[in-house]
Amino acid sequence: MIEIRGGTIVTMNPQNQIIPNGVIRIEEGRIVEVTSAEGQPDGLSGGEVIDATGKWVLPGLINTHCHAAMTLFRSFADDLPLMDWLQDKIWPAENRLTGEDVYWGTRLAIREMVLGGITTFADMYFFMDETAQAVEESGIRAVLSRGLVGLTDDASEKLREGVDFCRRWQGKAGGRITTMLAPHAPYTCRPAFLKEVAAAARELDCGLHIHLAETEAENRQIVEAYGKRPFWYLADCGLLEHRVLAAHGVWLEPEELDEMAGHCWGVSHNPTSNLKLASGFAPVPAMLQRGIPVGLGTDGAASNNRLDLWSEMKLAAILHKAVTKTPEAVPASTALAMATIMGAKALGLEEEIGSLEPGKRADLILVSCEESHLNPVHDPISLLVYAATRADVRAVMVDGNWLVWDGVFLPYAASETAQECNVRAKRLVNA
Amino acid sequence: MIEIRGGTIVTMNPQNQIIPNGVIRIEEGRIVEVTSAEGQPDGLSGGEVIDATGKWVLPGLINTHCHAAMTLFRSFADDLPLMDWLQDKIWPAENRLTGEDVYWGTRLAIREMVLGGITTFADMYFFMDETAQAVEESGIRAVLSRGLVGLTDDASEKLREGVDFCRRWQGKAGGRITTMLAPHAPYTCRPAFLKEVAAAARELDCGLHIHLAETEAENRQIVEAYGKRPFWYLADCGLLEHRVLAAHGVWLEPEELDEMAGHCWGVSHNPTSNLKLASGFAPVPAMLQRGIPVGLGTDGAASNNRLDLWSEMKLAAILHKAVTKTPEAVPASTALAMATIMGAKALGLEEEIGSLEPGKRADLILVSCEESHLNPVHDPISLLVYAATRADVRAVMVDGNWLVWDGVFLPYAASETAQECNVRAKRLVNA
Repeated sequence: MIEIRGGTIVTMNPQNQIIPNGVIRIEEGRIVEVTSAEGQPDGLSGGEVIDATGKWVLPGLINTHCHAAMTLFRSFADDLPLMDWLQDKIWPAENRLTGEDVYWGTRLAIREMVLGGITTFADMYFFMDETAQAVEESGIRAVLSRGLVGLTDDASEKLREGVDFCRRWQGKAGGRITTMLAPHAPYTCRPAFLKEVAAAARELDCGLHIHLAETEAENRQIVEAYGKRPFWYLADCGLLEHRVLAAHGVWLEPEELDEMAGHCWGVSHNPTSNLKLASGFAPVPAMLQRGIPVGLGTDGAASNNRLDLWSEMKLAAILHKAVTKTPEAVPASTALAMATIMGAKALGLEEEIGSLEPGKRADLILVSCEESHLNPVHDPISLLVYAATRADVRAVMVDGNWLVWDGVFLPYAASETAQECNVRAKRLVNA
Repeated sequence: MIEIRGGTIVTMNPQNQIIPNGVIRIEEGRIVEVTSAEGQPDGLSGGEVIDATGKWVLPGLINTHCHAAMTLFRSFADDLPLMDWLQDKIWPAENRLTGEDVYWGTRLAIREMVLGGITTFADMYFFMDETAQAVEESGIRAVLSRGLVGLTDDASEKLREGVDFCRRWQGKAGGRITTMLAPHAPYTCRPAFLKEVAAAARELDCGLHIHLAETEAENRQIVEAYGKRPFWYLADCGLLEHRVLAAHGVWLEPEELDEMAGHCWGVSHNPTSNLKLASGFAPVPAMLQRGIPVGLGTDGAASNNRLDLWSEMKLAAILHKAVTKTPEAVPASTALAMATIMGAKALGLEEEIGSLEPGKRADLILVSCEESHLNPVHDPISLLVYAATRADVRAVMVDGNWLVWDGVFLPYAASETAQECNVRAKRLVNA
């Protein structure tokens, strides 16, 4: 039994309850009680007592779209037109990736994410066994999927690899790893392949993770190829009947969102990536109005370049105010929900994570509210979204285990990981 | 003599030189030498030697538009329509401000800014003697101006106060304080008053700090009142003949920028504030194309809510890519220039600050490059702009004096300032 006591608990429960001087009790990796500490003597439960005075206690943040190992390409090639960036820089470097590279790049990413309060990330990449190994060793939670490009002759073999990966890793690492199938995008998957993937997902009873409507060019390309926009292309391939995590969704129209809202779809909004790659402005307020669960994502480090959900949260809150000319758009409380409970819904994990409620996994963070930029305290939620930073995260727990304590990442050191990644990164881009 | 040795020096000089394993020598608050440390034995100069191995050494960041004491209203009222926010929340609270409140709010702001690597800020507010006192005591550099609203009967008296303030403080605090006159905005200053202010600026030989074209509503209002847009309104009042720091400039047109470029004007771009208040997207690439010096500003903490130039730098770099659909827009090196040397130009201080060059004031920062989010190292400038955060600033020097060392702000403690500001902030909003 662990008892976290004295902090201000931001529960993100359905009542959006905030409990000053609260107490959270944790047993075998699950939250068993969330209540006020008033009138309750210390150590009632006979367990370990953690003093969280002067801290906010929040659910761990959920990164709903990432390519973790792309940390190896962080700041390797920026400020370039999209196709130059992909064709001349990223794809050649990715072609040289080995499983070991992916393992080390993911280790670096996990260290960065956890230090910044991310306790779950959804990943789509390749060499996913090595990604899963890094997840298992680190203690973070993840929703993993092998990215499936359906244009080449070996597409069906890749799908088998993806299916085998799901079979091997679903529920592993003490339940911290769950899996999805990830048809990469409408423009890299032909109809027959999408239907094949959908059938496999039905058999596995797993969700689908896909890039959707990221750029105007994608929409044009799909309209040209199939006479319909990407969303309807996926719909007509039968994907509406599946649980789908759609990354980006920048170029979606009202009727598409209407249809999406009636199905078990969630969106991963990646505002930094969408701006940096000049993709555009996702219609997030329109998604939220329709009740579509919108989580936040960092995307890969090559297109961001920091895996920092505090930045995404603030940017999501401010960007759509300007786009819609409405200062009330995406208020702070909504942005915080996107980074927590709505992200959990987008991943289909809302029964397990995303809020501090009895019965849920003990994924939580302690955020210091002592620094100058977090004072004075008029409104904690506003401070958390508009003023707090990743560096204010002082402790991180996943599944009842501390991964960060007093700002220190416990599973492994910075220096070894950084050195190894620097050597590998140089080889990948200079070969 | 202080010698900073072993770091990677990002000079921001006209050649944009980066010196790995560099050395900077400082005497009496000025930089006397910036060179490579190769082949130069330690302690050659007989002075104090600072080991900057594993650090980037940069010019201090320059915040070109702030209302520092508004930290007292941080996160007090967010996500509201602009006029509700101003009329129901900010203005009533501001009306209760005392000089002591402004002193404490500014102390809090300075602590926050310096910890994040800001060594100079331009401020426009009231009770500026108290602001100046906080600047003098803290060791930061500032360009201070009393905000002048020219609509009330006491406008001329306010102008006299502003002029007296300039006379009292210009060049004080060992030269760290310079002054401007600050007619608040086109919509708060009638033509006769603007001309009065301009005449006073000519007499004082000082620059003007003014809000310009922040919102569409402002443009409409000025067109209605004077039959011309705000920029031409200021031009016709004779302001083109002055050195002007124009804050925001969101709603400026190409012909206005053409004209601006031919005069001694600079712009303070405040991307976070412009998004959060739903003001719009400033035409920054068009300003830069014309050679207008564009600095970065945080605006006040009520409309941001963090005084963090790293966020503004990254947002400036990514936002205009999406707005102009051009991933090459505002590359990392330009964003870093906006936060340093271009900011200095916008303030008319480019002979003194903004780059690491012999003869300039020793305003510099040491940034750690060891953390996971700053690895691997493909491109330092890209890492600094897209991946670094305020928490990576480990040391800050202004005028040859260390204000931050090993991440600790030396002039005064967090707790006393925060406590005092919390008490004052509660009084201001609850009265």
